[in-house]
Amino acid sequence: MKGKLITLEGIDGSGKSTVAKKLQENSEIRLFEPVFTREPTRGTLTGNAVENAIQSETDQLAELFLFTADHAEHLAKLIKPALENGKTVISDRYSDSRYAYQGVTLKDRLENPLEWVKSLHREWTIVPDLTFLFDIEPETAVERCGKRGEQTKFEKIEFLQKVRGNFLSLAKEEPNRFVVIDASSSPEKVEKEVVQKIIEFIKKD
Amino acid sequence: MKGKLITLEGIDGSGKSTVAKKLQENSEIRLFEPVFTREPTRGTLTGNAVENAIQSETDQLAELFLFTADHAEHLAKLIKPALENGKTVISDRYSDSRYAYQGVTLKDRLENPLEWVKSLHREWTIVPDLTFLFDIEPETAVERCGKRGEQTKFEKIEFLQKVRGNFLSLAKEEPNRFVVIDASSSPEKVEKEVVQKIIEFIKKD
Repeated sequence: MKGKLITLEGIDGSGKSTVAKKLQENSEIRLFEPVFTREPTRGTLTGNAVENAIQSETDQLAELFLFTADHAEHLAKLIKPALENGKTVISDRYSDSRYAYQGVTLKDRLENPLEWVKSLHREWTIVPDLTFLFDIEPETAVERCGKRGEQTKFEKIEFLQKVRGNFLSLAKEEPNRFVVIDASSSPEKVEKEVVQKIIEFIKKD
Repeated sequence: MKGKLITLEGIDGSGKSTVAKKLQENSEIRLFEPVFTREPTRGTLTGNAVENAIQSETDQLAELFLFTADHAEHLAKLIKPALENGKTVISDRYSDSRYAYQGVTLKDRLENPLEWVKSLHREWTIVPDLTFLFDIEPETAVERCGKRGEQTKFEKIEFLQKVRGNFLSLAKEEPNRFVVIDASSSPEKVEKEVVQKIIEFIKKD
């Protein structure tokens, strides 16, 4: 793999998608001609299955496997070819979201869901080179979501507290891969910090 | 679980779906009021995703996870409730098809795909009480499929030889669960044999 994979992670309302959009318009970032993408993917068979499942009463394990199917399809059709082509890929959410979220939703179904979901990916996923964790208090995140009118079952404070805890554990386990960002700052400040770190990272290599 | 789970497995063209239909009409079987079902499930979000994936150029790992999502949803919504309700459930295909088929389709992607797919299910699936393996020469099976006009990429002799090998290994590993049926006999003879074994099995308990 010649290209670099950069992922943006965090709980709903952490502002990562807003920053992802800003990165697409940022002239310094555009110089690298990165490929911008997201999970779940949009307009694909697997991405649509995930979106439909989230809106319905799908079993939590089934939901995990739909997300995983989408991740596998995303890797095969977009990420792997782009990286092999030397492209920088920036993904809004990636497999760490599965570990952090399904590590909570599956806690009554599996003994150690976070580790189980990680091990499910181990043999075939591509580990990102750099991951930004947009860290924020769930209370602030839920307030932001409320304003955007996107409140779903996922966006409950208690739930997001556990998801946040999982994200922070993942970041602690892999300090070289993760950059934890204080996402309670203004989008402008967060964008500036992320842009600076991306440029440092790309130039370092 | 009070009810019993019976599954019908075998390569495409082995005649198991024909026998499944005949079982639904069989007066001796109907006495038990079994729930008849199949995998992939029909008319569900996950079942439709699987069917669409099979028709398209979906990544093989993504396809496995879609099948697995469908299996999880099938367990949660139909099989588990039916068994808890004391019902006998008869499923045309089940998780052994994943082990046997994806054990072949993923051979270039994973080190030991059959074992990997089995371990993926281990912590949460319901193991059948009785599994019929409709065993047949792939040549005969492909000929049958041709007659039905349902030929797909799956129905190639070389591929089905490997799948058959996997099914026979699974049966050998669990001789108490598997009943291997000579599926080259007439549907009438196969039906009779299956009906007799099911009745013996249910009465034994």
